[in-house]
Amino acid sequence: MSDKNTTKDNSNFHFANSQRVYVEGSRPDLRVPFREIRLNPTRTINNTLEENPPVRVYDASGAYGDPTIQCNSTDGVAALRRQWIIERGDVEEYTGREILPQDDGYLTAGAREYARKNERFEAFPGLRRLPLRAKAGQAVTQIAYARRGIITPEMEFIAIRENLGRQAAFEAATNGDRSALTFQHRGEAFGASVPQFVTPEFVRDEVARGRAIIPANINHPETEPMIIGRNFLVKINANIGNSAVASSIEEEVEKMRWSIQWGADTVMDLSTGKNIHETREWIIRNAPVPIGTVPIYQALEKVNGKAEDLTWEIYRDTLIEQAEQGVDYFTIHAGVLLRYIPMTAKRTTGIVSRGGSIMAKWCLAHHQESFLYTHFREICDIMRAYDVSFSLGDGLRPGSIADANDEAQFAELDTLGELTKIAWERDCQVMIEGPGHVPLHLIKENVDRQLAVCHEAPFYTLGPLVTDIAPGYDHITSAIGAAMIGWFGTAMLCYVTPKEHLGLPNKQDVRDGVIAYKIAAHAADLAKGHPGAQLQDNALSKARFEFRWEDQFNLALDPQLALEYHDETLPQEGAKLAHFCSMCGPHFCSMKITQEVREYAAQKELDEQQAIAAGLQEKSEQFVQLGAQIYTKA
Amino acid sequence: MSDKNTTKDNSNFHFANSQRVYVEGSRPDLRVPFREIRLNPTRTINNTLEENPPVRVYDASGAYGDPTIQCNSTDGVAALRRQWIIERGDVEEYTGREILPQDDGYLTAGAREYARKNERFEAFPGLRRLPLRAKAGQAVTQIAYARRGIITPEMEFIAIRENLGRQAAFEAATNGDRSALTFQHRGEAFGASVPQFVTPEFVRDEVARGRAIIPANINHPETEPMIIGRNFLVKINANIGNSAVASSIEEEVEKMRWSIQWGADTVMDLSTGKNIHETREWIIRNAPVPIGTVPIYQALEKVNGKAEDLTWEIYRDTLIEQAEQGVDYFTIHAGVLLRYIPMTAKRTTGIVSRGGSIMAKWCLAHHQESFLYTHFREICDIMRAYDVSFSLGDGLRPGSIADANDEAQFAELDTLGELTKIAWERDCQVMIEGPGHVPLHLIKENVDRQLAVCHEAPFYTLGPLVTDIAPGYDHITSAIGAAMIGWFGTAMLCYVTPKEHLGLPNKQDVRDGVIAYKIAAHAADLAKGHPGAQLQDNALSKARFEFRWEDQFNLALDPQLALEYHDETLPQEGAKLAHFCSMCGPHFCSMKITQEVREYAAQKELDEQQAIAAGLQEKSEQFVQLGAQIYTKA
Repeated sequence: MSDKNTTKDNSNFHFANSQRVYVEGSRPDLRVPFREIRLNPTRTINNTLEENPPVRVYDASGAYGDPTIQCNSTDGVAALRRQWIIERGDVEEYTGREILPQDDGYLTAGAREYARKNERFEAFPGLRRLPLRAKAGQAVTQIAYARRGIITPEMEFIAIRENLGRQAAFEAATNGDRSALTFQHRGEAFGASVPQFVTPEFVRDEVARGRAIIPANINHPETEPMIIGRNFLVKINANIGNSAVASSIEEEVEKMRWSIQWGADTVMDLSTGKNIHETREWIIRNAPVPIGTVPIYQALEKVNGKAEDLTWEIYRDTLIEQAEQGVDYFTIHAGVLLRYIPMTAKRTTGIVSRGGSIMAKWCLAHHQESFLYTHFREICDIMRAYDVSFSLGDGLRPGSIADANDEAQFAELDTLGELTKIAWERDCQVMIEGPGHVPLHLIKENVDRQLAVCHEAPFYTLGPLVTDIAPGYDHITSAIGAAMIGWFGTAMLCYVTPKEHLGLPNKQDVRDGVIAYKIAAHAADLAKGHPGAQLQDNALSKARFEFRWEDQFNLALDPQLALEYHDETLPQEGAKLAHFCSMCGPHFCSMKITQEVREYAAQKELDEQQAIAAGLQEKSEQFVQLGAQIYTKA
Repeated sequence: MSDKNTTKDNSNFHFANSQRVYVEGSRPDLRVPFREIRLNPTRTINNTLEENPPVRVYDASGAYGDPTIQCNSTDGVAALRRQWIIERGDVEEYTGREILPQDDGYLTAGAREYARKNERFEAFPGLRRLPLRAKAGQAVTQIAYARRGIITPEMEFIAIRENLGRQAAFEAATNGDRSALTFQHRGEAFGASVPQFVTPEFVRDEVARGRAIIPANINHPETEPMIIGRNFLVKINANIGNSAVASSIEEEVEKMRWSIQWGADTVMDLSTGKNIHETREWIIRNAPVPIGTVPIYQALEKVNGKAEDLTWEIYRDTLIEQAEQGVDYFTIHAGVLLRYIPMTAKRTTGIVSRGGSIMAKWCLAHHQESFLYTHFREICDIMRAYDVSFSLGDGLRPGSIADANDEAQFAELDTLGELTKIAWERDCQVMIEGPGHVPLHLIKENVDRQLAVCHEAPFYTLGPLVTDIAPGYDHITSAIGAAMIGWFGTAMLCYVTPKEHLGLPNKQDVRDGVIAYKIAAHAADLAKGHPGAQLQDNALSKARFEFRWEDQFNLALDPQLALEYHDETLPQEGAKLAHFCSMCGPHFCSMKITQEVREYAAQKELDEQQAIAAGLQEKSEQFVQLGAQIYTKA
């Protein structure tokens, strides 16, 4: 296993002093990307220089983070996994479903062309591959391989990635089997325990047990494999998507890129309105991260927004349409049962999930269980044929503090647990969605119950928001809940932007949301004792203490903002080299004083050692003087 | 007890649909302010209107929140408590210490005048009262009164205030004694339990036990009484203050006003550099909230920044100077002992507390314990004579995740516990400062140990920050820790702004910091089950569900920002009345669908009731037909 560096600076994203490096796995086309941050040396008291090792961080930005790759959104990004998928010999190309004007919300092809003439819009011009699907009788899901004992390239990629590029750690890990792994137990009280090193075998085992999923549709070979499970780094998802009111395709593709630049691990396209199919095509072909959707949104558009007109056939067709495009996970609200709906009638905020409310309306209109529930086994067959992962939606999640942890929420959760077993029987990967709005003291119950009734399938929560009173700041109200629920064992956190409840997020909101969630996820990783997570904190704090301002900025989640803020107070270039900080001024600085304290303590210890040495010397001389006899006469 | 409303809109701060109301206590000069938010009626399905009661929220903004009061910073604000203090008959006016040029960092009066000519600066021109101090042998602290069984007007004011103006709650509470109070137990697992209603007697008892403090210097009669203790609403502090590098007096006074507008409960003036005395005079005379300081900062300026030149006499003189001005609490780092200092030498970030590092340097330079420790009893005498509360500083708090909960930190905490007992013996009020930088899983230990070794004295923590890697976003990294530690029992949270570690906060940073901490404190109040805390959440969520956009904005912690964000997507005035939200558009809205579900469920229940009623009717008729006999023959 070698470690090949690409040494050009990452100019795309302007992360200063950073470079893209790759760690190669067992085959040359298995190259795991990291961002490596170069640090300045420490200038010691004696004016000598001590090197500081570079810090490698997880990098979700794909080709966009590699300055040697020219990216062009009309071409899409490289199909990294294509060969791995083909090699397995269990898939076949086929003609696929015809793309209809209705997929994009138009009655006829003519209407579509007419409408698009006046929009900033064009159909995706790049490569259109024939779709792949499983050969008859084959299960092409990562869980199916895992259960058969197969370590896929995806699993190996993930093992390297989860070790944060710590080469030594990885090598140590690959020399041992799973039983030899040592565990830390910080999170054990909350049901989470994390291995010191992540091995490919550990990845396989966690996937086989259903405790982790690898969202990786065979028609989305552009994804760089990543894993969602509570014994791995906590992941975050960013929602994007146009709506009937605002936003264009270009903006959505740019939001996807922008999200992953700041660290989003997956992106959900929640588009509604027109051009849903084409928007998704652009996003997927350009996405190196898994893409999730809520297919019922598009299905609803196909019936002009009338929930009661939805049918199993329209929905099934939409699943196939999206599976052929390469969507990696589907949110499916199959747990909204007829008998649970009246439980929400007395809530403060009823049903706030869009998918949940659509299905509730359908159930009531037809006086029967939803087609998501009654056709669940057929849905599994589709998911298995493309390896689309289930994200079982919490259609009855609480939309306010008042409604948290209520009967409706937990009734649905029980049903999601039953559906998990059915999906697992059919070799499908499953994660479970969670709330929402939950006060601090009720958060842990959510994880405990989810782990119990859903048999440890990964949990994927929206926040939760810990109070309702701060619209405009819900990235913060929810990051609080997200950090805590991540620590307790949630595997992926769905971000919330400052615009939640108020409007559609712009790029700045996406950045604010992603960073708030990177903070929450990282805080959870630290608390769970994830190996390697604290390296970045330690390196940054050391830089801070040593007044290496530039390193402090570069090690930050958002180097640009840190630099901007510093420069507001002390804009001169020299201030970034100065041995004082802008809060206290040059005259009075606690860190400066502390350095003096440290020198003093070191000198004191030296003095004490010298005193002891001197004392020993004296004893020694005395000993010799007294005749060098061990025992003297009294 | 009456409830007198002042009905003019609060135009000072532009909180729409809000008015200042006062709840009067047992005397006419005891009037407790609240902000009352008027709500629009609910438009029901049948197009009838249902009133929504107004919501009263805690209001720290003092006279600035009352549009009937003309505020002028050169006059200061009214001396609300002056009469209460005089009436007690245990204080005397005296000439007081002469204000020296050195207090403001000048060698001579001439130098002071010369320097100020070129600055945006003038000496505070308003009322200069003679200072008050305790008569010989008297203890004029709230804890001394509380221990003697006296319920002061301050305590009654607080009882009304803590009930959030719930008139019924307060009346119910005042009819019972402490033993009759019912407790909720949400927070009990974490050592916190909160009464359903707060009575004056409960306030007295908590203060007497040392579990809560009322920072209320007799020379700061402008304060509106507030309490810091874990059985009350969680409070937040905002730090302001000029420094040698930037900032002017006017800006600092404006930052104080700005902080309390957004909800800061106390403000610390951490000024360094020139004009410290005058800056503080302006702030205190204009502050309706308690003001805290770190007196060692000013003492250090008096010895030109040379920590080793500090003396007990200079420090004592500074304490008296500030006590006469009216500072309500002093941070005193008396727990930094000589033997603890070497414990910090191997830390990642050494000593990051400014006060702690000053004292550490002094201790090492003199090879003896600091004068803060050796003269602690004399300090108590000063605190008692003015009722300045101790905020025992954590000079050895961790400055990074790597240093959290280490030997040095907890050694100092033990000493703070010893000092607490000494202060209590001398009738002084005490709170204890806490960290800092702490990962999620180590937060609870901080509260548990503090409660144990400091005998339940209130805890006052800075954050804590739960990761080091997000400079520029440390209001978020720390709000996460703050919410959790508040839930666990911390009584007051010291805010952190986005500029922490990078620069001095401007007004926007202060707003961001205060709102992030109001969120954390409120989340903790909800989790602790504080009575009344959830009313605002419920009202806002109901407004959100019913598309009462205006009410949703007005009930928010930051109504202006919520409105701005909404208008970015849907600026038209009509959109604020529309029965859809900007995320989904008019065509497709989960809340709209939910309303239909609710109607449906209601109809269904009605149908069921009618079916039952019809069934009963049928049975009834059958019964009559059969001869109306209870028992029929088989």
